[in-house]
Amino acid sequence: MTSSTNVSCFHEARRVAIFGGTHGNEMSGVTLVNLWIQNGKEIHRKGVETKPFITNPRAVEKCTRYVDTDLNRAFTTENLSAPSGDDLPYEVQRAQQINEIFGPKGSPEAYDVIFDLHNTTSNMGCTLILESSKDHFNLQMMHYIKVNLESVFSLSLSQIKHAFWVGPQPQGVLRSNIFESMRVDDVVCWLYCVGLEFPPCTVDVFRVSEKMDYPRDTNGNIIAMVHPNLQDCDWEPLNPGDPMFQTFDGTTLRYEGAGTVYPTFINEAAYYEKQQAFVTTRRETLAAGAIKKT
Amino acid sequence: MTSSTNVSCFHEARRVAIFGGTHGNEMSGVTLVNLWIQNGKEIHRKGVETKPFITNPRAVEKCTRYVDTDLNRAFTTENLSAPSGDDLPYEVQRAQQINEIFGPKGSPEAYDVIFDLHNTTSNMGCTLILESSKDHFNLQMMHYIKVNLESVFSLSLSQIKHAFWVGPQPQGVLRSNIFESMRVDDVVCWLYCVGLEFPPCTVDVFRVSEKMDYPRDTNGNIIAMVHPNLQDCDWEPLNPGDPMFQTFDGTTLRYEGAGTVYPTFINEAAYYEKQQAFVTTRRETLAAGAIKKT
Repeated sequence: MTSSTNVSCFHEARRVAIFGGTHGNEMSGVTLVNLWIQNGKEIHRKGVETKPFITNPRAVEKCTRYVDTDLNRAFTTENLSAPSGDDLPYEVQRAQQINEIFGPKGSPEAYDVIFDLHNTTSNMGCTLILESSKDHFNLQMMHYIKVNLESVFSLSLSQIKHAFWVGPQPQGVLRSNIFESMRVDDVVCWLYCVGLEFPPCTVDVFRVSEKMDYPRDTNGNIIAMVHPNLQDCDWEPLNPGDPMFQTFDGTTLRYEGAGTVYPTFINEAAYYEKQQAFVTTRRETLAAGAIKKT
Repeated sequence: MTSSTNVSCFHEARRVAIFGGTHGNEMSGVTLVNLWIQNGKEIHRKGVETKPFITNPRAVEKCTRYVDTDLNRAFTTENLSAPSGDDLPYEVQRAQQINEIFGPKGSPEAYDVIFDLHNTTSNMGCTLILESSKDHFNLQMMHYIKVNLESVFSLSLSQIKHAFWVGPQPQGVLRSNIFESMRVDDVVCWLYCVGLEFPPCTVDVFRVSEKMDYPRDTNGNIIAMVHPNLQDCDWEPLNPGDPMFQTFDGTTLRYEGAGTVYPTFINEAAYYEKQQAFVTTRRETLAAGAIKKT
């Protein structure tokens, strides 16, 4: 655990973007953002400009994850600096446009905070995934959300910035329970509250560790499913020797790692093509320093 | 209730086809049929030829419901009699090929029985959907399956012949519990048993009644979700006055039909584009006459 006794000062979060439809078949974010585009009252807070935005409209129209390539993996330095043109994959063009509107990343004219709303077919509940564990502003926001929101939140650290995932929900389906748990007005409320000072705190998080593929034959075909004991058990401990996969003829394959891990994104539909049955995470407690507005 | 005291005679079911991948993202049937193509021992019975068959290989490859049009709606007289050619939609070409291999429908060279394996995102459990309520052979088979299989089966009558649906399972996902409940070897076992005589019996079924769309605005946009009280309650009674939909601002819309119905295919992902939130069914008891092999 790291600690800090200083009070960090930062500029007020004046501009907040809320993205939906980064994956066009994840219906909660698509629906909420479209509603807020029509009527932004629910996410309006005095002194904060909140901009709801559909990031991948062609994928939304087709109700598919993406058209040419996964937009969520398209914000690379290489893509963002490539000469623009119609010959680029649609999502690369779109990443460049989004970077122009809401970025460029790290520049003074960039939006202060971006929330990207996602669904998953995994039984993950509400999950906030942040990129950095060193940013006191983000950690304080995580802490606020976990303590104050009615939904039970899991907090995870990964390479994706400010992604908000809720599941389980099948692709192309809108479920009322998932829809309601994604209303992020309380998050926006926090951003409005940053005029106050927040004291130091600790935050329990899951740090992404290892990507686990399905067992496959020599031709690359999947030969086993997620074991029924593991299915839907996102965030629960998986110990060495615990059942992990079940082959089609009923054989149990067990976890052989060195210590306890906490699997998540278990059996997510979109990750079959990414050779990922689940990811393991490890629990960690982070210390966030005090913050106050300059 | 109709009744029959005669014993119907019929020819032995010698040839049984088992279809998977009619919708390429319904993974239980795709996986089972591919396994049985590699090794058919599980579905082999003496005196019965069982042929596992992937009906829509291009959709399976892309893990999508269909490529050009829904194969499950492509077996129309008009399509089957159209001049064949590469300019036809892929699934229409495929329907013609399948009709040639396993049909033509009603002809002496046609397969005796075809099972079409499907998944649904709805909480329907195991459901067998038959076209005809007048065929004693089919009703006796339904009765056998409901009485003898470990899985709890719902029996439904619709325009789709011998379709076997299991859910809930998201598109593109393979869940072990759903996979195991779809192993149809017990059904094949019954077909092998048709040498015996089956006495008259009654079968409780759900007859499809009405298709219900989501509430929409004047532009055709959906303005409400399936109500949380109805979500996942397939086959349970919906009475006049019961909550049916919930608008995005929280208003409850109630069922205003004349009597009790039993909704199913509630919030199925693939039916958003078909303007269908669920279908209503009504309970009915059918009488099946005795049958024996000629």
